[in-house]
Amino acid sequence: MRTLAEYASLVEQRLPEYLPAAEEGGLILNHAMRYSLLAGGKRLRPSMVLAAVEMLEGDLEEAMPFACAVEMIHTYSLIHDDLPGMDNDTLRRGRPTNHMVFGEGQAILAGDGLLSLAFETMLAQGKKRPERAEAYLSAIAEIATGAGAGGMVAGQSLDLEYERNGSPADREDALFRVQRGKTACMFLYPLRAAGKLAEGTEETLRALEEYGRAFGMLFQATDDLLDVLGEAKEVGKTLGKDAQSGKLTCISVFGVEGTRALVREERARAEAALERFGKRAEFFLELVRKMENRVK
Amino acid sequence: MRTLAEYASLVEQRLPEYLPAAEEGGLILNHAMRYSLLAGGKRLRPSMVLAAVEMLEGDLEEAMPFACAVEMIHTYSLIHDDLPGMDNDTLRRGRPTNHMVFGEGQAILAGDGLLSLAFETMLAQGKKRPERAEAYLSAIAEIATGAGAGGMVAGQSLDLEYERNGSPADREDALFRVQRGKTACMFLYPLRAAGKLAEGTEETLRALEEYGRAFGMLFQATDDLLDVLGEAKEVGKTLGKDAQSGKLTCISVFGVEGTRALVREERARAEAALERFGKRAEFFLELVRKMENRVK
Repeated sequence: MRTLAEYASLVEQRLPEYLPAAEEGGLILNHAMRYSLLAGGKRLRPSMVLAAVEMLEGDLEEAMPFACAVEMIHTYSLIHDDLPGMDNDTLRRGRPTNHMVFGEGQAILAGDGLLSLAFETMLAQGKKRPERAEAYLSAIAEIATGAGAGGMVAGQSLDLEYERNGSPADREDALFRVQRGKTACMFLYPLRAAGKLAEGTEETLRALEEYGRAFGMLFQATDDLLDVLGEAKEVGKTLGKDAQSGKLTCISVFGVEGTRALVREERARAEAALERFGKRAEFFLELVRKMENRVK
Repeated sequence: MRTLAEYASLVEQRLPEYLPAAEEGGLILNHAMRYSLLAGGKRLRPSMVLAAVEMLEGDLEEAMPFACAVEMIHTYSLIHDDLPGMDNDTLRRGRPTNHMVFGEGQAILAGDGLLSLAFETMLAQGKKRPERAEAYLSAIAEIATGAGAGGMVAGQSLDLEYERNGSPADREDALFRVQRGKTACMFLYPLRAAGKLAEGTEETLRALEEYGRAFGMLFQATDDLLDVLGEAKEVGKTLGKDAQSGKLTCISVFGVEGTRALVREERARAEAALERFGKRAEFFLELVRKMENRVK
């Protein structure tokens, strides 16, 4: 059983081989893609793909391009999220955002390039092992669904709309739709993809999906909590500025105690989904504990 | 043998079924994607995919999601090209550009959504006919290569860079690299995908590729010529503003007569590539004639 740090280090080692060399074709694009993709980060999503494949006794090496593709998609979404037309952020992980370094146009293209490269990377594995084409097609389809116009991009679109024009009266429903799309989809669909790669049964896929969804909500809820806990420390308040601004977060909808209850609830759901895997789910159980520990 | 108008009309009829309904989930994203994808246009690229599949006695219906996906990718590239951070265009085909209607953030997401949806659409065909997974994987891989970080996106990145920072001393080489990436890749790789769908031989794929490359160059050269011929009519000049501004176009690199020579050259190349298909290549021969007639 590997740890998150071990999987993340594997991903870190392998990511560069799927990227065009910085100097190839004299393209700023290549520098811009590398700048954001190789900027570190937890490598949580690709590590979860690899861990799920190993938990189901699939082939780690075969899963590597799929895991790295998931990280490319995550990175493209951050580059586009940071753009002036979206969140207009100037810093990400302590470094200037992509468009601050390469300009807005090249940052848009770096995102587009990484999304395309994610698919190229997964499809290339099909050339290596054409006899596995059916499994690959369905794994790629899962990831495309999570990333796509009914998944992550839909969540971002809703989030942007609510931020600009206010959220609907049913704020709880609105919050769940945004967080399911923006956050949970890129956990649950990649996990389903891992299940397909490892030839998991329908029940296995459903359990992975249920875990991924609950983990995504847990991830977002603890993130939202951390934001206010951090701010509370700084300015001695119990609610952060997001809660006051009416921005749609777990805190603004459920309050701090309500969000803590949500964390317990999603944790229980995530653990229940893992039961069928017994001791082999240790990696995923540990992740859940890590999340809860963030806000203790 | 169908005509371009007939194929385009087929594409027009079928495109909506691959899109989420406008009202689905109350998403502005769906309106924004539909606004640009269903805005008409020549439907040239998807028609060429369908025509190539029929020329090679492949299955038209099977090719439909691939053809429509190619149009989605073309449309996403136009939405992103028009953004303030790129070309900053306010009109496209006589209508306000996507970001003028939906705002910059939603336009970025509409492009992202269409690119993802293109892959989702192609991958979904794999669920319908899993026994064809290997052919589909390799067809999708061709399209991803054409659209991706070594294809269309690379061409856009170079174009943007040269526009902002000036082009290199070897302007001819720079022009070919930009036009190959920006324009030719989204003809030649979709044609190769059609060849894979129809189980074409390596020689067939190479002929389609050669035709697609030459056609792309012809398309771009006649576009550049049309720009100056149109302007010359308007203002009585023989060279357009692009030529004067030093922007990298066929006209600014080769002049009007040189560009006409290039048109003849690429036409001859395109026709030579079609020889092996004999009379069955009529659709593609006609396209070449149409291009040349634009600038007669």
